[in-house]
Amino acid sequence: MADSQTTLQQLKEKMAAFVHEREWEQFHTPKNLSMSIAIEAAELMEHFQWLTTEASKNLPAEALADIGEELADIVIYALSLSNALGLDLSETILAKMDKNIRKYPKDKVRGKSHKYTYYQK
Amino acid sequence: MADSQTTLQQLKEKMAAFVHEREWEQFHTPKNLSMSIAIEAAELMEHFQWLTTEASKNLPAEALADIGEELADIVIYALSLSNALGLDLSETILAKMDKNIRKYPKDKVRGKSHKYTYYQK
Amino acid sequence: MADSQTTLQQLKEKMAAFVHEREWEQFHTPKNLSMSIAIEAAELMEHFQWLTTEASKNLPAEALADIGEELADIVIYALSLSNALGLDLSETILAKMDKNIRKYPKDKVRGKSHKYTYYQK
Amino acid sequence: MADSQTTLQQLKEKMAAFVHEREWEQFHTPKNLSMSIAIEAAELMEHFQWLTTEASKNLPAEALADIGEELADIVIYALSLSNALGLDLSETILAKMDKNIRKYPKDKVRGKSHKYTYYQK
Repeated sequence: MADSQTTLQQLKEKMAAFVHEREWEQFHTPKNLSMSIAIEAAELMEHFQWLTTEASKNLPAEALADIGEELADIVIYALSLSNALGLDLSETILAKMDKNIRKYPKDKVRGKSHKYTYYQK
Repeated sequence: MADSQTTLQQLKEKMAAFVHEREWEQFHTPKNLSMSIAIEAAELMEHFQWLTTEASKNLPAEALADIGEELADIVIYALSLSNALGLDLSETILAKMDKNIRKYPKDKVRGKSHKYTYYQK
Repeated sequence: MADSQTTLQQLKEKMAAFVHEREWEQFHTPKNLSMSIAIEAAELMEHFQWLTTEASKNLPAEALADIGEELADIVIYALSLSNALGLDLSETILAKMDKNIRKYPKDKVRGKSHKYTYYQK
Repeated sequence: MADSQTTLQQLKEKMAAFVHEREWEQFHTPKNLSMSIAIEAAELMEHFQWLTTEASKNLPAEALADIGEELADIVIYALSLSNALGLDLSETILAKMDKNIRKYPKDKVRGKSHKYTYYQK
């Protein structure tokens, strides 16, 4: 699996080279990239727009390939934004995960979808 | 830098454990996760909503920290969706990057932001 | 019902006055307003993020009031964008509805959610 | 101008008939419609993705027509959601506008884009 061998840094560098060779740093501003991520997120949603949540769990292979590409686009722009902001994405993600672990204590939220504010009462 | 040492697989596994310990697989369906990514993308955009594209390049440190967290949330849900779909995210990203390299030939698009359809004419 | 008596023009004018009195035309550019609509749309989605499609049909009164406010925010920004673009919104909507009527012939699409491309084959 | 003569009720009824004739009420659930609005909002944003905020104020006629259609799609789904929720949209919008007038006192926010929390200090 490529996921076992690929670091965020490798992906960030590949994306930085892609942007640089096209002189696209001028367009890849944080504001524009935030829009780009949202636009790609919507293209991902389009695949699920009219499906029940159940049906979205059993997707035909062709849909899966398309969905993978939309998901890739989202992460690609997230990598470019990390580059533009000089952000260590892994560190940021790991810190946010730790915050979430504290915010949603597993014994309190198990099997429940309510937002965390409900559990602070 | 954590990005140089962290693989996608490590992040995916940490997220899978977080979801599993809370029995949240039932909520983390592909449909719901596509909405979650879009929601977090909008929270990221909120930081840039009223800024000029120029101003978005010079952010105060406090804003940068908040923006990092929003970006982390987006990628966290993207990891969870990869888990839900059984997707090798790195492979998908690398394949999409290669497709983009072919779609936007650097000598034709250098310094231009037009969509690729313009260059196929 | 206010909907029976209120024209789009009345709402557009009320919004134009609100923006003008605050000298917010400088921020209410088409680009920024498109982001604003997307941000409010995400806040609306947040109410449905973890619900099944079925459950979203039976909302408690408190949720309904909050959801109404989010929906209002979306249309409010749509009104402001119509003002910024000098657009006759009703005319545009009616034209688009007529286009949709032709695009989705009722005898072909009845009870089906597939996108229109399927029906053109 | 159609906006001077068209009420929200007329548009809501036209949309309700469109949905009913296609037996699409089953798909037009609040959850799905919130996704639809967000998807259309992203299609609107796509027109502005790489433009400066300034450039977004001077759009060619062809772009304007396309943008109008995307904006129409957003409002069309907002009308359908109002129908699905049994919501008086004008009343909701007018109430929200009044709330905004109080939330953003014109003498305090004139010419400023900061969020309202800054003014409550």
